[in-house]
Formats: sequence, C-alpha cells, structure tokens
Amino acid sequence: MPRADDLRITALAGGVGAARFLRGLVRVINPAHLCVVVNTGDDDEFFGLCVSPDLDTVTYTLADAVDQAKGWGLPDESFRSLKALQRYYPETWFGLGDTDLATHLFRTQQLRQGKTLTEVTAAIAHAWGVRATVLPMSNEPVRTVVHTEAGGLPFQEYFVKGRGEGRVRRIELRGLDDARPAPGVCEAIRSAHMVIVPPSNPLVSIGPIVALPGVRDALCQTSAPVVGISPLVAGKPIKGPADRMLSGLGIEASAAGVAGLYADFLDAFVIDSQDAALRTPLEAQGLRVRVTDTIMSDMEKSVALARTVVEQVLPDCRS
Amino acid sequence: MPRADDLRITALAGGVGAARFLRGLVRVINPAHLCVVVNTGDDDEFFGLCVSPDLDTVTYTLADAVDQAKGWGLPDESFRSLKALQRYYPETWFGLGDTDLATHLFRTQQLRQGKTLTEVTAAIAHAWGVRATVLPMSNEPVRTVVHTEAGGLPFQEYFVKGRGEGRVRRIELRGLDDARPAPGVCEAIRSAHMVIVPPSNPLVSIGPIVALPGVRDALCQTSAPVVGISPLVAGKPIKGPADRMLSGLGIEASAAGVAGLYADFLDAFVIDSQDAALRTPLEAQGLRVRVTDTIMSDMEKSVALARTVVEQVLPDCRS
Repeated sequence: MPRADDLRITALAGGVGAARFLRGLVRVINPAHLCVVVNTGDDDEFFGLCVSPDLDTVTYTLADAVDQAKGWGLPDESFRSLKALQRYYPETWFGLGDTDLATHLFRTQQLRQGKTLTEVTAAIAHAWGVRATVLPMSNEPVRTVVHTEAGGLPFQEYFVKGRGEGRVRRIELRGLDDARPAPGVCEAIRSAHMVIVPPSNPLVSIGPIVALPGVRDALCQTSAPVVGISPLVAGKPIKGPADRMLSGLGIEASAAGVAGLYADFLDAFVIDSQDAALRTPLEAQGLRVRVTDTIMSDMEKSVALARTVVEQVLPDCRS
Repeated sequence: MPRADDLRITALAGGVGAARFLRGLVRVINPAHLCVVVNTGDDDEFFGLCVSPDLDTVTYTLADAVDQAKGWGLPDESFRSLKALQRYYPETWFGLGDTDLATHLFRTQQLRQGKTLTEVTAAIAHAWGVRATVLPMSNEPVRTVVHTEAGGLPFQEYFVKGRGEGRVRRIELRGLDDARPAPGVCEAIRSAHMVIVPPSNPLVSIGPIVALPGVRDALCQTSAPVVGISPLVAGKPIKGPADRMLSGLGIEASAAGVAGLYADFLDAFVIDSQDAALRTPLEAQGLRVRVTDTIMSDMEKSVALARTVVEQVLPDCRS
C-alpha cells in the first residue's frame, strides 16, 4: 500500500459535511493527490449570477477560508449588496455576502465568456491556493428539483427559502439526460487508491453525482476500495433535511438506510459510535464497518476521522 | 407660453454636471414632464457587469439618493465586493460600491434576459421613485474611445484608470454606425417646449448623443428653443478633462469653444459670470446669452440656475 503521502484519493462531495471531512483529510494525506468531485445539482442562478454552493463550500473550506461557525460562506461577511437588491427584486432569500459575491461574479463572467465550469472551478481553487483538484460533477447543468405535496421546487428554494419543509415525494434531477460527468471524474474514481464518500446527503448531494452516466459503473468497477461515512447519526443528519427526505421516499432514515443506497459500490462504511448497534446488520450485508466518532465539531475531530479512514479502514479493506 | 407646471422639457445629459442641473430643474418644473436623454458612450463592462455611469448618476441624483460629495454613486458606500474581486482579477480600478452593485446586477440580468436598455433604465428609475423619464441615448452599444499618443482607450480606462492624462488626438465613437437613437429620443426633442443642454462635456457626454443619426437634425429642426449651459467656467470644467480634450483637438477650451460645437442647433447659451466678457462675441454669433452663476455647489444654486433658464432664458427666446 502506498504511504499516506503518495495515496491518491478521490472523494465525492456535497457541501458542509463533506467539506468538514476533507479539511481533515488534507492534513493526513498530500492534498495535491486529492481529487474532489463535487455535486452541482444544488447550483442555481440568483440575480443573474451562477451560484454553485457545494463547489464554493468545498473550495473555501480547503482554503481554510470558510466561515467556521456556519460551515459555508466567508467569515465577517456583510450583506449590503443583497439588501440593495431588494429595491429591484421581490425576493432576496438566498444569502449572498458581499465578499462571496466576487466568486459568483467571476464564475458567471467566465462561464459567459465560454469557459467550462471545470475550468472556472480550477481557476477559483487556484485563486484560493487550494492544492487539491476540485472538479464539478458535470459541465452540463443538472438541477435537483424536490417534489413535495406543494409541487416541485429547485433545491435551494426547497431547502433555503422553504426551510426543507413538506413531505418529499420524489427527487428529480432535471437535465440529467443531457449531462455527462465532467472530464476526469470517472478517471479519478478508477485511478484512485481509495474512493471516499464523506458524510453528505445521499439523495441530493451524492445522488446526483452517482446518477451521471458512467459514474456508478466506475464506482462498482474501480479496484480502489470505496469507503463511505454515514451522514446520519442516530437517524439524524448534523445539518440539513436528509432524514426527512429519506423517510419521505420510504427509505429508512439511518446509517443502514444510507448504506443500502450505496450497496452496489460500497466496500466499507464508517458509522458513529451512537450507531454501534448497526455494525452487525451492516456486516451481515458484506460491508466492513468501522465505528467511531464521526461528528466533526472541530478540526481535530476532522483530522481524527480522516486518520481513521486512511490508517485503519483502508488497510482493513486491503487485508 | 405654458406655465412652469405644464412645460415639457427635454434635456441631453452626461453625468455629474448635468445631474446637478437636473436636480434643480425638477424643483422648478413638474418632473413628470421632464425627459432626460442620457449619454451611454461611457458605458462599459466590468467583471461581466453592464455599467452605465451616466444613467446611474442621473437616476440616483433625480432620486435625491446620490452621494452629494462625489456627485455620483451612493452615499455611505463600502467596497467589500470590489476588494474581494482582487483575488480573481488583476485590475479593479473601477470603483463599484457594494450598494451600487445591485443596480449593475439588475441591469445586467435584465439585459441578458433580452430587455432593452430603455426598458431596464425605466425599471431602475421607477425602483428609485424617479418621476422624470430617463432615456438612454441608444439601445445599441456606442463606446467612446479616446485616442492619445498612447493609443486608443475606452473612456473609463482613459478617464478613471488613466486619470485623463495624455494629449487627446481623436475621439472615436465605436459602434455609432450600427446605432440608432433609442425610441422616444428624437420625438422628445421635437415635442418639447424647450431643449436644454446642461453643463456636460461637449465631446464625450453630449457629443455621442448628438452624433446618433437624426438627433442633430431633430435639434436643428425642433420648434423648441435649444438652450445650452456652458460646462466651462473661465476655461476650466468643474470636473473632468473637457478643457484638455478640447485643446487636444484644437478647439478653444472656453464657453465660446463649446458654443461653437453647438452652433447649428443652439438658440441661447448660459455662461458663468466669470465669463461675462464672452457675452458680446457670443451674441455676435446670433446667440441669446445669459450671464449668471453656473457653479452648482449646492441645491439652492442648482434651483437658481434652473429658475434662470426656465423663467428668464426661455421667455427671452420666445420674445
């Protein structure tokens, strides 16, 4: 097995939960050997700006620039532009900070000039001094639409404006039929020493990535162990509506429910100590299971969890 | 002659000088009967945003919202987005404030959605509660390029970044051949009771408007008196590089030089008390001349100058 410094790791990522894991991971492995494939199903356009919440959360976090308290956005943020936009727009519920706005302006301008999201994402990561490779899952737009009894809502409208309320009946990935994985995504899965699925919403963060043509196959076929970390602890996510979304779709809101969604490609699963009772049933499904503290409330915990995955789960998978 | 309340006035406008006159004019006449045709030759794109400096200066001023000290932009402005943009762009010399940014975001988004600049300008004026009609001179882009010995520079680059330095050899209005006056511009000139050319740079503020096909003819043919106010006082502008531009092109940098540029359509000219000596030579050219204080250092002076134009110059022209 390569030394930690030589390990090539590919991670699939949503937003805050994944980013909190990755901030630890880049302190355990050589960040230059990390490739993060990021969900863009949450992307949306606000005031004509192309906003990619998960890409920014991952990039800002890997740059150690993220607002630590919120887990997304930039610290000491002000919202003067957003307040001024109220003069022109009836709705300004999506919180775009004045500093953060620069990223959206740059992304939008570059995309309108014909750059791909892959290129713009690399330029943004470079501008922030991020050494890992940050890849959008696709250069084509895929929009996650959450259908509740109230109808279909784009993800941000469901989650931010609607606060994740309403019983979820269906999740639609609009544009999926015309989307391909971005260049390098499947290659990064196939050529890694380990693929990690950090604690992200399995339906709206990991789901869109895995739904892209070829990605699930790559995950099933890669010779690298695929290691997941449960986003649910005692049936609840640390943040977000994953439990209600799972229940709404008739899936058990638990680490076991998530493992079931990943069953065909998962080799090992890390669950929280509070879920220790799930170890035996998960092992019975053929998974290697590691029980540990998965709640990354500070950097040390993020590093400890990354260390567990790299130094214990990975050798386990290879034994 | 109609009462002040019924007077329909059309004004051609650049930025700060014109706006300072117009803030007084709307206190003398019914603002709903004022139509302002605004130069867009200074427009440019920064960070992908469509910026129309003169339109915004006129609109913010008519809304009594402008930064009074600078004469443009909004008061108590912060520049956090601009500072953050330095991470992505090598040059951030054009000062876009956080609050002002909302206007550029709205304009850009609406234009990209297919609205005309006329429509967007009306929407912005409406959002600010401006009762006057604010018209861009054209819906097609015309870009003023200032040629000095250093080559051609877009106006903002010459004026803001380059601080108006360099000997001006030529002023190019790029795009003029494909541009028409915006709907309503020539009609507003022909149907007004008076047309006013407030104190604006004759070359780069009034020049582009008058250069549009049909505008000069409308100014010559309108039955309304056309009244100019000299932007030069004792050979110097209150703000900007008009004197150096005129000299560079071999035109006398004086109220008389400006009057010469407007000779074919001007009926009356208001000059500053400091230029009283020019009265006789200007009158010899067939102009009605009014000598008064034209430096609008506060609102009272703006109102006084507007009152002079409406209550003295206009009746003079009709007598």
